[in-house]
Amino acid sequence: MAPSIARQIIDVHPTGFGVIDRKKLDAAIGLSQQASQAASICADACLNEGMIKDMRECVRACLDCADVVDAAVRALSRHAGWRESAAPAILGAAVAVLGVCAHETARHASMHMHARLTSEICRKAERACTELLESLNE
Amino acid sequence: MAPSIARQIIDVHPTGFGVIDRKKLDAAIGLSQQASQAASICADACLNEGMIKDMRECVRACLDCADVVDAAVRALSRHAGWRESAAPAILGAAVAVLGVCAHETARHASMHMHARLTSEICRKAERACTELLESLNE
Amino acid sequence: MAPSIARQIIDVHPTGFGVIDRKKLDAAIGLSQQASQAASICADACLNEGMIKDMRECVRACLDCADVVDAAVRALSRHAGWRESAAPAILGAAVAVLGVCAHETARHASMHMHARLTSEICRKAERACTELLESLNE
Amino acid sequence: MAPSIARQIIDVHPTGFGVIDRKKLDAAIGLSQQASQAASICADACLNEGMIKDMRECVRACLDCADVVDAAVRALSRHAGWRESAAPAILGAAVAVLGVCAHETARHASMHMHARLTSEICRKAERACTELLESLNE
Repeated sequence: MAPSIARQIIDVHPTGFGVIDRKKLDAAIGLSQQASQAASICADACLNEGMIKDMRECVRACLDCADVVDAAVRALSRHAGWRESAAPAILGAAVAVLGVCAHETARHASMHMHARLTSEICRKAERACTELLESLNE
Repeated sequence: MAPSIARQIIDVHPTGFGVIDRKKLDAAIGLSQQASQAASICADACLNEGMIKDMRECVRACLDCADVVDAAVRALSRHAGWRESAAPAILGAAVAVLGVCAHETARHASMHMHARLTSEICRKAERACTELLESLNE
Repeated sequence: MAPSIARQIIDVHPTGFGVIDRKKLDAAIGLSQQASQAASICADACLNEGMIKDMRECVRACLDCADVVDAAVRALSRHAGWRESAAPAILGAAVAVLGVCAHETARHASMHMHARLTSEICRKAERACTELLESLNE
Repeated sequence: MAPSIARQIIDVHPTGFGVIDRKKLDAAIGLSQQASQAASICADACLNEGMIKDMRECVRACLDCADVVDAAVRALSRHAGWRESAAPAILGAAVAVLGVCAHETARHASMHMHARLTSEICRKAERACTELLESLNE
């Protein structure tokens, strides 16, 4: 597979992106973007399902996920984050919203394919962000 | 002073916004939005100052601040956040970026008025978010 | 009334923000932020109203409004925008989503106070953005 | 190649996403996300290049691009957009910022590989968004 555009640009970044594990960074960025995209569409799909009363918390979890993960991906794209104390807190927030979104969508996975697909990708992104977060603390 | 539009709508929200302290929520939202706005303009202003080498980290801190705080304000606007485990992590990330931004801009406060104004509002927003975060844990 | 933090920082921006009408810029930024905030909370409130089938388009219009207006406010905070061809298109998109959101929320204004408040502030922000857009073309 | 997660979820969306051309929608979303990601990293890389005076407009164009394109991708993920008058204006704003960003980064393409990669992906995304926009008007 060709390297992602993010990875290609990180590899030519004038700072070298410091000591960060680029493979873990690239995985976290790539999977988080997919999870955010899935959550945005899933929130919209949920609005059209019959039992909105059951879907409310799922919509909210999806919207929180998209908002916080998009902000985290941007911060991850900035070298500065890695020298500052904010990076672990930002990744921690991403892990939290991905976990809640994976949990809420999993509750509807047997009924709605969009919820199942979103749950799966959020779980993968949660793991990738957790691994990156752990590598920062090593 | 007239109540903010956010406070007016929160007061008529069908859920009542649960047990959250609405005064603290409103203060956190209002000051965070001002801090985000200040950080966005300050990042741009820094690009035009002479010593960019000295301003780089400040630009990055301002951009991180605007991205993460905007996402937090949206999540704060959703009732769901308060029942889920993601709310403390989201507020924690906001407190972290506001603190880093206040610190970085303070280093340039004697030279640049835009940095001084941004540092002051970020510090206020940091305090308001911290107070809201503490009230969640009570 | 004290000048907004945005206006205070714009007034000390090293570029002087070019030939832009600062009063109109400040009004557009301030009202747009309030409209975005209102739309975010209104989208959430709509999820708890009984007739979700009637509220779906309103939720979507509110979310589109918050997303596009927040992006426009950031772009408005950057001096560069005013020299580039993207500024009118960005403001045009903001005017469009504010108009659609004002229209959709107005349909529920007699039933739901949150929709009425959101409709009113979106209409004000739409006007402020339109006036700023027109001043760019003069 | 496996279909993107966005395409998979769009294909199971309860509304069927109306009459929109799903292949063009998927291309526009996928390329726009890559362009936004590239622009975010490129803006950061530019801060570390020696001649910041020459890079300022490029940083601003990259930041405008990331902000507006991210908002457009979210709106594209909502079925509602396609029934409302805001969709063409939102896509028009995305095309505008992608074009300006492609142009500004192209000016530095011979010197900086990150600018060259960003210019190329922005141009591709600009074309995909233009094609989607034209298909809406057919």
